[in-house]
Amino acid sequence: MAKNVTIKDVAALAGVSLGTVSNYINGTRTVAADTRARIERAIEVTRFVPNRAVRTLRGNRTHTVGLLVPDAGNPFFTEIARGVEDLARGRGDVLVYCDTAGDSERQALYIRSLAEMRVGGLIISATASMPPDLGDLEAVGTPIVVVGGEGMAMSTSRVTFDQRLGGMLAMKHVLELGHRQVLFAGGPGGELVIQARYEGALAAIDALGNDRAVLHRVDAAGRSVRERSKLADEIMAMRPRPTAVLCGNDLIAIAIVNTLVRTGRAVPGDLAIVGYDDITDAQLAVVPLTTVRQPAYQIGASAAELLFERADDPAGPHREISFAPELIVRDSSGQSV
Amino acid sequence: MAKNVTIKDVAALAGVSLGTVSNYINGTRTVAADTRARIERAIEVTRFVPNRAVRTLRGNRTHTVGLLVPDAGNPFFTEIARGVEDLARGRGDVLVYCDTAGDSERQALYIRSLAEMRVGGLIISATASMPPDLGDLEAVGTPIVVVGGEGMAMSTSRVTFDQRLGGMLAMKHVLELGHRQVLFAGGPGGELVIQARYEGALAAIDALGNDRAVLHRVDAAGRSVRERSKLADEIMAMRPRPTAVLCGNDLIAIAIVNTLVRTGRAVPGDLAIVGYDDITDAQLAVVPLTTVRQPAYQIGASAAELLFERADDPAGPHREISFAPELIVRDSSGQSV
Repeated sequence: MAKNVTIKDVAALAGVSLGTVSNYINGTRTVAADTRARIERAIEVTRFVPNRAVRTLRGNRTHTVGLLVPDAGNPFFTEIARGVEDLARGRGDVLVYCDTAGDSERQALYIRSLAEMRVGGLIISATASMPPDLGDLEAVGTPIVVVGGEGMAMSTSRVTFDQRLGGMLAMKHVLELGHRQVLFAGGPGGELVIQARYEGALAAIDALGNDRAVLHRVDAAGRSVRERSKLADEIMAMRPRPTAVLCGNDLIAIAIVNTLVRTGRAVPGDLAIVGYDDITDAQLAVVPLTTVRQPAYQIGASAAELLFERADDPAGPHREISFAPELIVRDSSGQSV
Repeated sequence: MAKNVTIKDVAALAGVSLGTVSNYINGTRTVAADTRARIERAIEVTRFVPNRAVRTLRGNRTHTVGLLVPDAGNPFFTEIARGVEDLARGRGDVLVYCDTAGDSERQALYIRSLAEMRVGGLIISATASMPPDLGDLEAVGTPIVVVGGEGMAMSTSRVTFDQRLGGMLAMKHVLELGHRQVLFAGGPGGELVIQARYEGALAAIDALGNDRAVLHRVDAAGRSVRERSKLADEIMAMRPRPTAVLCGNDLIAIAIVNTLVRTGRAVPGDLAIVGYDDITDAQLAVVPLTTVRQPAYQIGASAAELLFERADDPAGPHREISFAPELIVRDSSGQSV
């Protein structure tokens, strides 16, 4: 195998100078069409791989967009990734997808490693309770966009959601259906995000003149389908038993639906269930899911847009794009009780 | 922000020579413990980011492991990624996760981009029908491991499965239950993989002395839950209607289970369903899934093991680790008909 092909081999084969090949590769000067064709043919024949590291040393970044998510196994983040990727591909960039598992230390490791690799830009879906330490990236001038991380003080371009409103919409819905034993199952994710939704739920209780004692809270569910299914069993064992549950994400809601139906219980008869996110699976669950919609694909696409804006104009102002949540009512919350 | 911190600032602050800092960073010479402590402190204070690109130009690779999968939204690949990542992390490597969407062109783009970035190593879960073109990677001497891609001629270390045996086990199971109208729903993925399973199913028919006409084949289901659910409707509209379906993966099987139960049909009463992979969701589906198990986490860990073996000894022989599939019988295939 041609392990040591260099720019010299390409130049020799194309019959042009080293400088011309360099101009072609780095786009530093326009190269005549026929010369370009010869260089391209020579690159093909020699299997020469331009060393992007050379450009990195000249101050450019690699053609990569990093995306840090807290749970690569959740279709919500897969959809965000698709949104980012579609825009990145349009610029010839490759998406580097990293799973922090919601762990701050792991997030810090990824940020440091990506900084060392001179990643072209980074989108961080921040759901840990602490703002990510972006010092390493800022030190090398990498464009950054943060998705979520509501309540964290960060000076970056951002895509945000009104988490408080989301919690409010969900709670208002089950209160209006007549539920007075409601469980708030926060789920994994940032404490600040969950806290904002919880406060929204309390605000809905106040606004409708109910007693805050109607709402109980657990923050139990983990990231595996096994842990989520276990939560369903725990809920059915609670006394007094909740008649409705507000879930931290759709995966928790779907696991509860599945566990109940599998064990001969009725949804929403035995338990009304409200999800969060509106992943595609929500609509196609055994009992279609009432949920609070966050448009994942558009979130990803917007984050990529903000990132490229920063990359093209590093001195420009930080921008924020905000999405409002929307309640989608399907069968899992059912009729008035 | 300290945008222009260089190795000089670190050396000045630590009160040592440039060469000493360089020796520390590149590990080219041992540095005394107290000097090392001063350099580490200076790096911390100045927020200096060692430029890994410098090492790349010296012939080293970046501290990354690339993983190409055909469907990042399938928990089977998320589990493989976890296996790779856990081993990579032990070496201080970061996992670069790329979704080729089962598209050969996209796969080629990723391979090229990762070669340009001098990725430390690459694991390719090849499910396209053509062997990936690894010329770019081989040209820069990158270690490569291929997962799957049975039937493709490739000279790399590999992790393989006996796809034919998997198809055989699934078909034998439904034949023994008495089914004589069986649908083979190949699903997305490599034509060679699906073909091998199909041939295994035919072999099971022959071995049990049945007529090959008991088996029909569709290769319809796409990568979205919407497409998978649509397949369920199509199956129920088929005449003669299949009494059992062998699915290309568990996600297809789960979507069929959900669609049937949602529309008031019984599983396995109206349709016996066999999945493939045994993702965790299979066991926790509304009707627990009979499926052909492939141990995703171990597959990822084994691929990483082979990759690091190549990285440590590039001239060593290629190795292959092969996993045998295993039939897991749960409720979705039911009793004899």
